[in-house]
Amino acid sequence: MKDGIETRLYVTAPLAEGAVIGLESAQAHYLRSVLRLGPGEAVALFNGRDGEWLARIDGIGKGWASLVVANQTHPQCPEPDLWLAFAPIKRARIDFTAQKATELGASLLWPVMTRHTMVDRVNTDRLTANAIEAAEQSDRLTVPEVREPTSLDKLIAEWPEDRALLLCDESGTGLGIAEALAAAGPSVRRRAGFVIGPEGGFAQEELDRLRKLPFVTAVGLGPRLLRADTAALAALAVWQAVAGDWTTSTSND
Amino acid sequence: MKDGIETRLYVTAPLAEGAVIGLESAQAHYLRSVLRLGPGEAVALFNGRDGEWLARIDGIGKGWASLVVANQTHPQCPEPDLWLAFAPIKRARIDFTAQKATELGASLLWPVMTRHTMVDRVNTDRLTANAIEAAEQSDRLTVPEVREPTSLDKLIAEWPEDRALLLCDESGTGLGIAEALAAAGPSVRRRAGFVIGPEGGFAQEELDRLRKLPFVTAVGLGPRLLRADTAALAALAVWQAVAGDWTTSTSND
Repeated sequence: MKDGIETRLYVTAPLAEGAVIGLESAQAHYLRSVLRLGPGEAVALFNGRDGEWLARIDGIGKGWASLVVANQTHPQCPEPDLWLAFAPIKRARIDFTAQKATELGASLLWPVMTRHTMVDRVNTDRLTANAIEAAEQSDRLTVPEVREPTSLDKLIAEWPEDRALLLCDESGTGLGIAEALAAAGPSVRRRAGFVIGPEGGFAQEELDRLRKLPFVTAVGLGPRLLRADTAALAALAVWQAVAGDWTTSTSND
Repeated sequence: MKDGIETRLYVTAPLAEGAVIGLESAQAHYLRSVLRLGPGEAVALFNGRDGEWLARIDGIGKGWASLVVANQTHPQCPEPDLWLAFAPIKRARIDFTAQKATELGASLLWPVMTRHTMVDRVNTDRLTANAIEAAEQSDRLTVPEVREPTSLDKLIAEWPEDRALLLCDESGTGLGIAEALAAAGPSVRRRAGFVIGPEGGFAQEELDRLRKLPFVTAVGLGPRLLRADTAALAALAVWQAVAGDWTTSTSND
C-alpha cells in the first residue's frame, strides 16, 4: 500500500483541505468493524475529480463516520480514455470482468446484448460496487463509469464516430491486436473502446455489420479460443501496453 | 466450438488412425452422465504430441469408455515457449491463474515461494486439472507443464541462462512492458518466462538480486497497482501480442 496509508475509499463529495466528509454507512461499518479504526487514524480519499487526499477520522460510531481532509497526496491526472463494451456473462465472471477491467484502467463499462448473449439481466449496481472496490485497491484516482445495458444496434448508433471501436474478432482473419493498433495510427491512443462478444461469439451478421463501420478495427487475439472474460482483459492489457499509460514508466508511487 | 465436434478431451495415449483409446473414469463419466453421449458420437482428442484427432465412442458404461481414433483434424504445430513462475495465491485465484494462463498460451506453470508469499502449500494436481480443462476448452493442442513449487533461490539457480526472465516490477522504475520486450531483442521471442510476485510484492532484496542477473529484464505494468493474478494474465497477453503467436493472423480454425 502507498504512503503508509492502508485504506483508500472512494467518496462523491468534493475534497479540499479542511473539508468534513461524512461516509456512507457501509463504509463507516467497514472502517469501524472490519478494520477497527478509530478517531485520528488516516484514510486516503478520492472522488475521481480532486486527486487523492489524506483524511483523518474525526468521529465514528455505528453506521456513521466523519473525516476531516488534511493534505493532497496525489493530484488528479489524465487517465487513458478506453471503453469496454462487453456481452454480459454469468455472475462470478461478470464481477471478475468489472474488477479486472478497473485495475487495467478501463474508463467505461458498458454491457451490450448481442444475438448469442445468454444473460438477460445485468445488475449495474453490482458492477459499480465491484469497480469501486477495485479502484480503491488499485490506487486508481477514478472509478469507471458503468452504463445501463444496451443492444448492439443502440451501441452502434450511440458510439461516437471519433472513437475507434476495436472489435475482438475470433474468426482468426483479422490482424493481430498489436499490429492492428499500430496500423490504426495515433487516434487510437487518444480514445478507443473494445467490444467483446459473448461465449458463443458474435453472429456472422453482427460481425459483418460491425466490420463495415468506418470507425471499427477488427483485432485478433491469437489462435487459442479465449473465454469472454479472458478476451476482455487481454485486450485491455495489450492496449495499455502499446497505446495507453503503460508505455512510459509513469507511476503513482 | 470447432469443426462441429463439441467435446475435446486431453489423453496421454498415442493418437493415430485406428488406435483404440480407453478413457479415465472421470472422463468416461463426463461423456456418459454429463454430456449423455453414446456409441458412435464424435469426440476430439489431443495429447500434446500428435495433433488433434476425431474419435468415435466405441463402447461406454459406468466409469469406462473406449474410443476409436478416425482422422487427424489438426496437425501438431509449434507453440510459444513462455513460462509463468508465480508466487501462489489463494484457492480461487490460483485456479483462475492456471486456467487463464493456459488460455493465454503459457507452456509451463511454476509456483515460486518468495519472502512475502502468504500461501505455504500448493496443490499441483489441482493446478494441472485446471490447466487440462482450460486446454480442452481453448482449442490448445498442449497442456502446460506444471512444476512443483520451488523457492526463489532455486528458481534462479535452475533458470536456463538462455531464457529471458521477465520480472514484473511494481516499483514503477522499469520500462513499460511493450518497450522492454522490444528492447530485449529477438531472443525474447524464442523463449522467455515471467516471474510474478505475491500480493505484497517482492522484498527489496529479492528485487535487487533478480535485477542483477544477466538474463533478467524488468518490465513495468503501468501506474495502477495490479493484483497478482491480473499482473500474470496481463503480462502473458502482452507478450503474446507483441512477441508470441498473436503477432500474425494464424489460427487453429
